[in-house]
Amino acid sequence: MEPKKSQERLQQSLERVTELLEKQRRVETLVHSQHHPASSPAGRQGLVESLVHRQHLTELRQHLGRLHAADIAYILEALPHDDRLRIWEQVAASRRGDVLVEASDPLRDFLVHAMGRSDLLAVIGQLDAEDLASIAEDLPDDVLQEHVRSLTAQDRRLLQTSLSYDEGSVGQLMTSELVTVSPEMTLAEAQQQLRAQGNLPSHNDKLFVVDRHHLLQGVLPLQQILLNEPDRRVGDIMATSVVTFTPDDDATEAGKAFERYDLVSAPVTDSRGRLLGRLTVDEVMDHLREETEEDVLALAGLSGGEDIYSPVMDSARNRWVWISLNMLTAFVASRVVGLFEHTIAHIVALASLMPIVAGIGGNTGNQTATLIIRSLALGRLAPSAISRLVRKELTIGLLNGLVWGSVVGAFALVLYRETGLALVIAGAMVLEMVLAAAVGMAVPLGLQRMGRDPALGTSVLLTASTDSLGFFVFLGLATLFLLH
Amino acid sequence: MEPKKSQERLQQSLERVTELLEKQRRVETLVHSQHHPASSPAGRQGLVESLVHRQHLTELRQHLGRLHAADIAYILEALPHDDRLRIWEQVAASRRGDVLVEASDPLRDFLVHAMGRSDLLAVIGQLDAEDLASIAEDLPDDVLQEHVRSLTAQDRRLLQTSLSYDEGSVGQLMTSELVTVSPEMTLAEAQQQLRAQGNLPSHNDKLFVVDRHHLLQGVLPLQQILLNEPDRRVGDIMATSVVTFTPDDDATEAGKAFERYDLVSAPVTDSRGRLLGRLTVDEVMDHLREETEEDVLALAGLSGGEDIYSPVMDSARNRWVWISLNMLTAFVASRVVGLFEHTIAHIVALASLMPIVAGIGGNTGNQTATLIIRSLALGRLAPSAISRLVRKELTIGLLNGLVWGSVVGAFALVLYRETGLALVIAGAMVLEMVLAAAVGMAVPLGLQRMGRDPALGTSVLLTASTDSLGFFVFLGLATLFLLH
Repeated sequence: MEPKKSQERLQQSLERVTELLEKQRRVETLVHSQHHPASSPAGRQGLVESLVHRQHLTELRQHLGRLHAADIAYILEALPHDDRLRIWEQVAASRRGDVLVEASDPLRDFLVHAMGRSDLLAVIGQLDAEDLASIAEDLPDDVLQEHVRSLTAQDRRLLQTSLSYDEGSVGQLMTSELVTVSPEMTLAEAQQQLRAQGNLPSHNDKLFVVDRHHLLQGVLPLQQILLNEPDRRVGDIMATSVVTFTPDDDATEAGKAFERYDLVSAPVTDSRGRLLGRLTVDEVMDHLREETEEDVLALAGLSGGEDIYSPVMDSARNRWVWISLNMLTAFVASRVVGLFEHTIAHIVALASLMPIVAGIGGNTGNQTATLIIRSLALGRLAPSAISRLVRKELTIGLLNGLVWGSVVGAFALVLYRETGLALVIAGAMVLEMVLAAAVGMAVPLGLQRMGRDPALGTSVLLTASTDSLGFFVFLGLATLFLLH
Repeated sequence: MEPKKSQERLQQSLERVTELLEKQRRVETLVHSQHHPASSPAGRQGLVESLVHRQHLTELRQHLGRLHAADIAYILEALPHDDRLRIWEQVAASRRGDVLVEASDPLRDFLVHAMGRSDLLAVIGQLDAEDLASIAEDLPDDVLQEHVRSLTAQDRRLLQTSLSYDEGSVGQLMTSELVTVSPEMTLAEAQQQLRAQGNLPSHNDKLFVVDRHHLLQGVLPLQQILLNEPDRRVGDIMATSVVTFTPDDDATEAGKAFERYDLVSAPVTDSRGRLLGRLTVDEVMDHLREETEEDVLALAGLSGGEDIYSPVMDSARNRWVWISLNMLTAFVASRVVGLFEHTIAHIVALASLMPIVAGIGGNTGNQTATLIIRSLALGRLAPSAISRLVRKELTIGLLNGLVWGSVVGAFALVLYRETGLALVIAGAMVLEMVLAAAVGMAVPLGLQRMGRDPALGTSVLLTASTDSLGFFVFLGLATLFLLH
């Protein structure tokens, strides 16, 4: 056997594909620039070039044929739009559906728009109801409708059930592909059942034991069939203490349970215990990764729909909501400073020093907020703990204010040799850091209570407050104590 | 069977435990405040209280006994330090090792320091070499040494091998618990081998096929044993195209491969193909989650060692490195403004407007940097694509500068009714947003080239540059064009 180092191999694939594309491009340029009749010597050369061209394409097609659909998606994602199209044309028609399912949102969006209507219909025609449901929101409505009309009544029902689950629910991620056995069967009969199934689903580490009403009775790990005598009964061997989910459960919470209990697959039942499907660790992992990625992007005000090869105008527009929000908060901060222009005109050093107070305040508030958001996300905040936490963070804010206020005060004293100014900025730092800690707690806890995601809204609200507060506290104290 | 809704059940557990602790605390307070001889009436009451007390503890112990070790760790993490100790005392001694392995770093650190030396030695004595190695860095050196001295020569060798792998490598996560078969065996013999093993490892979805030199030949999914006739040979059934890893592989890269190829377990071999161990999806998931968590915390300058219940001084010190770094950059920005105090003294409106330029610049730079860091992390940046990307981001910066520069210019014009000032701030915005896009690309790409993690260093360096650049560009232009 040949051991494969996955990441290395993938990089090599990407390089090989890029190289083949480059060669092909060079040949195309030659062919275009030297278009002569085939009878002339130059024309014969053109013929040779075109043969070479076809050879590169064949090699490309063969290379892609050996790759996993996920790897093809990876390579497409690493390439600019025109190169993606060249590659996509060489992907075997029968595999395009799989690649579409494995693709990230921006890549899928790109491919869907790049394909003609009939191509697209052919590709989605290859997908089963669950795969189709998972990408349905990225398909044009009319194409989806046309496809639905071509389905049998049963397939249509299946698709509609799959589509009915909410985004981010267990129902959306689960599969109905599973093997059931009844508790009265012997292990040998269970094994027969397994063989009768033929094409077995992936991540099939256990069989599901149901009674005649399809109510879940327990699970039978494959391992148990191998370890026990064939004449023993399923009902005696099965595990009955099983972590189960319902279709309406939050997929992220299910993911945490998979992590906690080291699950490979788990049954999904309705509220009465009827078996509906199966949730597998691969779907859960994909969901968790996508969610993390979206969170990271959203923190900077980017949407998951943007990738580095999106057109300039799309990218620019994608970022405007966020910039305009920040613009609003910057205007507010600017007006706060505006209130004190009279003071600044008298003591111009305030203009140099004020960014320090606001900046460090934002920093402190952000640290507190990150800790709270993390604790909320992990469910590690017992309600009884909140008042204790408030006291602790305020104490740290005070402590930090005293320490770093002294540092900034000393800095101001060395630069401007004015004790009053140094004392004012030190005092402002203490106040600002306590306020920033308070805001850093209040914003995520408040968003959480309002039912919003604290990870997303916190950053803008926090910076808005700490900047304006910092300017107000510093310039306000200076106006009170330094203006004679 | 009773279906368990995992998250709900966990919250109920947490509430039940909190409730029992509360009851216990109330009884303790009573007992302490009414200490009388047992013969007096009050003393008899004390006796009753103490019985009630013991009853709560028994209930607590029973409740904990029914929980998964991961759930006990979860509950401990949600509670303040003193409550953690009360719970820990009620965890059965035989299960403490498992809880210690499941605990997050700050909780483990807390528990290790809370336990006496002999208790700690007893707990780590329960762990196998791999579990012990995974928590070894959190144990005091002398305790670890003492434990090692008590081991047999073979166990000591095992532990030393486990300890020799780098943090974040596949070797650190892999387990040596696996079942091997030889290609010449029949499936029936393979099944015998499996039964002979007795206590089977978890996530055992496949057997590993090795020759007499322990070189990996392929893998045999359990399912294949069930689906094929017992007299067929392992060598004919096994899969030979297998994703393998080496102990030195980066665990995060391995995690991406698990996601891409939907793996449950994979063989780990040395460079010559000798089977060393097995990597399972549960370890990989834990690793990926921990890494994501650390990244999120590190972005705000927090270390994974801090939790919301860490003592105030520890927490404060944990945050100082980051604050002092930001302090330095704030001082630099302040000195940049200081260069232009003469200009500000003449046109005090500059002080109000300058935070807008710096703030929005930081915002734009951060968006660009986030996109680059994400693309680098996913390996989606083909080297040929970088120059194209640079052009695109600079174009977006220019476009954004023109759009938002006009907005800010209009804002300034409305407020101060001076065309010169409006034009200067609009021009400064254009320059700042192009520069911010450039810095937002240069910083993560530069850090990556230097072999540093771009996700961690970028934020400080970026804010430092965009603030100072924004002040310099705006105040510089104002000095050139507005000062007569």
